[in-house]
Amino acid sequence: MSKGPVVIEVTRGPVVESRHEGIAAIVKPDGGIVEAWGDVDTVVLPRSANKPIQAMAFVESGAVERFGLGDEHVSLSCASHNGEPRHVETVRAWLKTVGLSEDDLECGTHPPRLQSSIESLVREGAVPTQAFNNCSGKHTGFLSTAVVYSEPTKGYIQYDHPVQKRLRAIMSDLCGANADDFAHGTDGCGIPTLATPLKKLAQAMASMAEPSRLSSRRADAANRIRAAMNTEPFMMAGTGRFCTRVNGALPGVAEVKTGAEGVFCAMLPTLGYGVALKMFDGAARAAEVAMASLLSHLGVLPADQKDELLNPPIRNVVGRLVGEMRPAKSWLG
Amino acid sequence: MSKGPVVIEVTRGPVVESRHEGIAAIVKPDGGIVEAWGDVDTVVLPRSANKPIQAMAFVESGAVERFGLGDEHVSLSCASHNGEPRHVETVRAWLKTVGLSEDDLECGTHPPRLQSSIESLVREGAVPTQAFNNCSGKHTGFLSTAVVYSEPTKGYIQYDHPVQKRLRAIMSDLCGANADDFAHGTDGCGIPTLATPLKKLAQAMASMAEPSRLSSRRADAANRIRAAMNTEPFMMAGTGRFCTRVNGALPGVAEVKTGAEGVFCAMLPTLGYGVALKMFDGAARAAEVAMASLLSHLGVLPADQKDELLNPPIRNVVGRLVGEMRPAKSWLG
Repeated sequence: MSKGPVVIEVTRGPVVESRHEGIAAIVKPDGGIVEAWGDVDTVVLPRSANKPIQAMAFVESGAVERFGLGDEHVSLSCASHNGEPRHVETVRAWLKTVGLSEDDLECGTHPPRLQSSIESLVREGAVPTQAFNNCSGKHTGFLSTAVVYSEPTKGYIQYDHPVQKRLRAIMSDLCGANADDFAHGTDGCGIPTLATPLKKLAQAMASMAEPSRLSSRRADAANRIRAAMNTEPFMMAGTGRFCTRVNGALPGVAEVKTGAEGVFCAMLPTLGYGVALKMFDGAARAAEVAMASLLSHLGVLPADQKDELLNPPIRNVVGRLVGEMRPAKSWLG
Repeated sequence: MSKGPVVIEVTRGPVVESRHEGIAAIVKPDGGIVEAWGDVDTVVLPRSANKPIQAMAFVESGAVERFGLGDEHVSLSCASHNGEPRHVETVRAWLKTVGLSEDDLECGTHPPRLQSSIESLVREGAVPTQAFNNCSGKHTGFLSTAVVYSEPTKGYIQYDHPVQKRLRAIMSDLCGANADDFAHGTDGCGIPTLATPLKKLAQAMASMAEPSRLSSRRADAANRIRAAMNTEPFMMAGTGRFCTRVNGALPGVAEVKTGAEGVFCAMLPTLGYGVALKMFDGAARAAEVAMASLLSHLGVLPADQKDELLNPPIRNVVGRLVGEMRPAKSWLG
């Protein structure tokens, strides 16, 4: 019952200049496939698109209550953030709250994603630290969980550390398969990223979207994470970002999360669906249009968001409109 | 006689995480196809990959001799440069030499490509100007040509301006088809980009690589351009760039030029071949590995360049090797 692949086109003048293909699955919590495009048994590395799943252990641990944290921290725990001042300052304060510092992070340092944040640093003569890493919130969530359970914090990124084992146990419950059996690569931030059949990734998202079959503690954590993604969408990503825009616009209806290499996931609580997609070539620009297209296809994308998210304009250096991106007719008609 | 598509893989741990497909053609000056992958009748927008062709009119005009210009200017006239100080300063001085200024450029302003150049500007409190545009050398070549022929410089980016008409006439001669019949879109820098069958783009490159069937003035221009790309490879691109590295390493053997949206071209004078390739998804990372693979396939890539160009490492934030890019076995075996 799988249809042809996801296809996103990039036009320039009268020509389709480039073309992206991928796979997508809309799945129910029991694994039932609502709709699928391409071979959704294909194994993908979820990268950051599964951060809401990875935040579950943190919220389930009671760290939020124990350390008096709020929605901004829960949202940050599943963020790929821009390294803007509010992101960095919140991570630093949070680390202090749990009795740790930036030196305990093992995510490494990269410049902030937002060009204006890089330029601010240069102007100040400052250099980025690990708190600027787009994954610093997730890692602080990992560290907080280790503190709650009195585990060593050192090595929390390793496959066999209790922090990572807990993530696999939760993933197994959410997706209905044993995540310990999944092969793995190393993610940009150093943690294992599990080779997951696309339909299983979508099923895990569905289990968080409609968590009634989960234990009550697990269901509460899922509900808390979804709510935080909607109420603190800036913390998820940042200025101008797709996740911030969509999560802020669709409270209680959709929570989306991007990942590297063209992966994108969504939880759709009103429909009780989970969504996962992967563009074969890893292109973020195409994954965004594909996710917007699926949200529109399912009737949850507000009319005032459609134009720019479904058909992002391509402008040249002087700002002239020279093309657009769009879902191909061969895909969604 | 066309084979399966170009395929470039991106691995992470034991998994092929992403995958890029495209088309490629190796062609002789008479249009004879030496080897082809995918449908090489497909129309592509060459973007900046045809800048060496676009530099022909400039060199043929005699502007180099009239204004006392050198190889650095010829190389800049077919560059997509980083906006590093030497690029910008050379463009500014060249404009002055022909009696014009940056205000005559119509390419628009974007920040320099090289992050360290952006940061230098921020430190100095300076802002980029049109000379920083990666196409500013090409545009200065266009302006110089208009000056030589006493044409109005204003509007030199328009489809019907003599500067652009001349480019189409030369392209027609080089590729053996009437470029006035090609559809067109607008390039990033404002000039028309012509929808060209991939095999015709490769044929034009072959005509420049082995120009004996061209008029002597045209053949001299092609030889001059190829030589400048090899002797001033920094001007073509800049620090760390594929074109600078390869053109500097293969004098008289290969001259390569990248373009936006995954197009890459090469002239191979010792073999008498032209090469053109297009990755469908527009990925530059894949176009580079594909070009390196074709150069290796044809025996012109030096052994000491192979490892890093054919199999660029993928490292995570802390520098750990987590994967690589590679030509797929299904493509080149």
